[in-house]
Amino acid sequence: MNHSDTLELSLQLLRQPSVTPVDHTCQTIMADRLSAIGFNIENMRFEDVDNLWARRGTESPVFCFAGHTDVVPTGHLDAWESDPFLPEIRDGKLYGRGSADMKTALAAMVVASECFVKKHPDHKGSIAFLITSDEEGPSINGTVKVVETLEARNEKMTWCLVGEPSSTNTLGDIVKNGRRGSLNAVLTVKGKQGHVAYPHLAINPIHTASKALAELCDTVWDNGNEYFPATTFQVSNIQAGTGATNVVPGTMTVTFNFRYSTEVTADQLKARVLEILDRHAVDYDISWTLSGLPFLTPVGELVNAAKTAIKNVTGTETELSTSGGTSDGRFIAPTGAQVLELGVLNATIHQINEHVNIDELEPLAEIYEQILVELLAQ
Amino acid sequence: MNHSDTLELSLQLLRQPSVTPVDHTCQTIMADRLSAIGFNIENMRFEDVDNLWARRGTESPVFCFAGHTDVVPTGHLDAWESDPFLPEIRDGKLYGRGSADMKTALAAMVVASECFVKKHPDHKGSIAFLITSDEEGPSINGTVKVVETLEARNEKMTWCLVGEPSSTNTLGDIVKNGRRGSLNAVLTVKGKQGHVAYPHLAINPIHTASKALAELCDTVWDNGNEYFPATTFQVSNIQAGTGATNVVPGTMTVTFNFRYSTEVTADQLKARVLEILDRHAVDYDISWTLSGLPFLTPVGELVNAAKTAIKNVTGTETELSTSGGTSDGRFIAPTGAQVLELGVLNATIHQINEHVNIDELEPLAEIYEQILVELLAQ
Repeated sequence: MNHSDTLELSLQLLRQPSVTPVDHTCQTIMADRLSAIGFNIENMRFEDVDNLWARRGTESPVFCFAGHTDVVPTGHLDAWESDPFLPEIRDGKLYGRGSADMKTALAAMVVASECFVKKHPDHKGSIAFLITSDEEGPSINGTVKVVETLEARNEKMTWCLVGEPSSTNTLGDIVKNGRRGSLNAVLTVKGKQGHVAYPHLAINPIHTASKALAELCDTVWDNGNEYFPATTFQVSNIQAGTGATNVVPGTMTVTFNFRYSTEVTADQLKARVLEILDRHAVDYDISWTLSGLPFLTPVGELVNAAKTAIKNVTGTETELSTSGGTSDGRFIAPTGAQVLELGVLNATIHQINEHVNIDELEPLAEIYEQILVELLAQ
Repeated sequence: MNHSDTLELSLQLLRQPSVTPVDHTCQTIMADRLSAIGFNIENMRFEDVDNLWARRGTESPVFCFAGHTDVVPTGHLDAWESDPFLPEIRDGKLYGRGSADMKTALAAMVVASECFVKKHPDHKGSIAFLITSDEEGPSINGTVKVVETLEARNEKMTWCLVGEPSSTNTLGDIVKNGRRGSLNAVLTVKGKQGHVAYPHLAINPIHTASKALAELCDTVWDNGNEYFPATTFQVSNIQAGTGATNVVPGTMTVTFNFRYSTEVTADQLKARVLEILDRHAVDYDISWTLSGLPFLTPVGELVNAAKTAIKNVTGTETELSTSGGTSDGRFIAPTGAQVLELGVLNATIHQINEHVNIDELEPLAEIYEQILVELLAQ
């Protein structure tokens, strides 16, 4: 085995149409390879979601590779230049749904482990894999349930490397050592329906909420910190009216989202929103959904191991970032594990003609292996 | 014939399911009665709309009754206590679609004319009827086309009484001597779609327009005048977003309406809106629809005749008003005619279980007849 095996295993995984929550044997393919090099395999199926927990060794510290075999839907097949589940190489790029997010990283993890185990069969601690088929979906029966199971039996990860595509321009230029929190709200502004010709008999929720909405859009929630950009507020949906041009609507619905840093808490953000609405005398109902707590892994063993490995393999000085959406790292970090995200370029994820540069694959496997060397070699 | 005939003719008209633009013989029923007392009948059908122009006499001045035989849809039939097109009298009220808006007024006009002609067969000038079946609809092939036809042959109205339900609490308490203008706009705010986690790569049109929208809602456009209330601005519809909570929408659509007095013009309102949008650097497209110019009939012969007649019949001191929606009066006033709206109570128009008080019918016919006496008796 060597790092060039990463492409072959990637192709094998990419041929599986594993749209969330379907795993379509991807985890079996990985487990067979891991089992062959001494991993203990546990399949943890919750409802319609397949999860894999694989571990080589019983001692601490535990280094865990985390990721997902599921992919987002393809969208219109006609728009793809080649079948999204028949991976194809053109002009040095590997095309297929999941090529960037994140089946090539899964292949690199397996190959890196194989190479490492071959050279260091008696490594320190343990190597583990936490793989789910529900990262792109509701994320209810995936990583979070596996983590609960491990916690219940007091099985801890020391370091967790999530293979999400973190790179922006070149492989390894960015690693993510945290993610912002994500707080959603559905605001229903209450008014009174009526005829536009008799506005004094109606209460227009668009009007009563307009100043509060302008203030919410204009508020500086914090200035971020060393690791986090400033907290952002974005309205994703606003709706009022029936389509009729002569009717004052009775209600308005506004959906908004905070991506927030560790400088504020979800409760503080909620309180500040309510204060603005109340000060402008808005009549409303509001419901909140906290879709992700922020997490942060400060510079330490894992970050340093990744920086060294990236520098050695690619020559790149990597940058730490906490930008972007949420990831399953948010479920793992609360256990106390150091969590880092490191993977291929994310330029085409979730898009038509998703692809990855072929020449990222071997270096990624090398980087993963070197991180194992840094942390677990005797 | 006497004023109590008004009920019988009302029932006859109410039995016709004349939902816009269908006249369903209502105009024939009226024309037969008018023809019998010396009216010259002209049916003016434009496209799918029936219109009636009837005139008794060839001289000036011309007093015209104007109105419409069409009614708005019934809505859910189950919600009606009796069939909307099988008029029914219960507790002194006449129920049926069009009972208030405005078939009882049409009946009162015909009966008033009959009574007047009987007593004053050689009246001054002319009596006319301008009746359409497209007042509640697009109003394209109705009154406006009849007026164009009359203008083309230089046939003028001196006074026009529109039988719209103008009364609020008691018969004749309010007459409308004008209507506000109505100006509609569809504003499309342009942004750039993106992911809520990367707002710096997107332009959120809800955010970029929020201050301008708040200012539009908060602006005093004028203070009205002796005849007109202040101009009002109302947003009827606002829409942005696909429903997804993680997508910054690319565009926002805002539909709004001005009801405006004679203190401002449509062009002034447009200019002020554009100034506000531009000052806040909103990127937008806007399209305008002027659905009605304002009109006003100051106190004069017609207003005085109506005031006197109402006072004589009901004892009420009537009030002039220009409030409410638009009416076909907006098409007649530009010809130079004095235009006044006077009809039954408007409390239940366009509603389920629309009705009128039976004891409004005879007095309304008496008022109409007395106005004819004031203006056309020798």
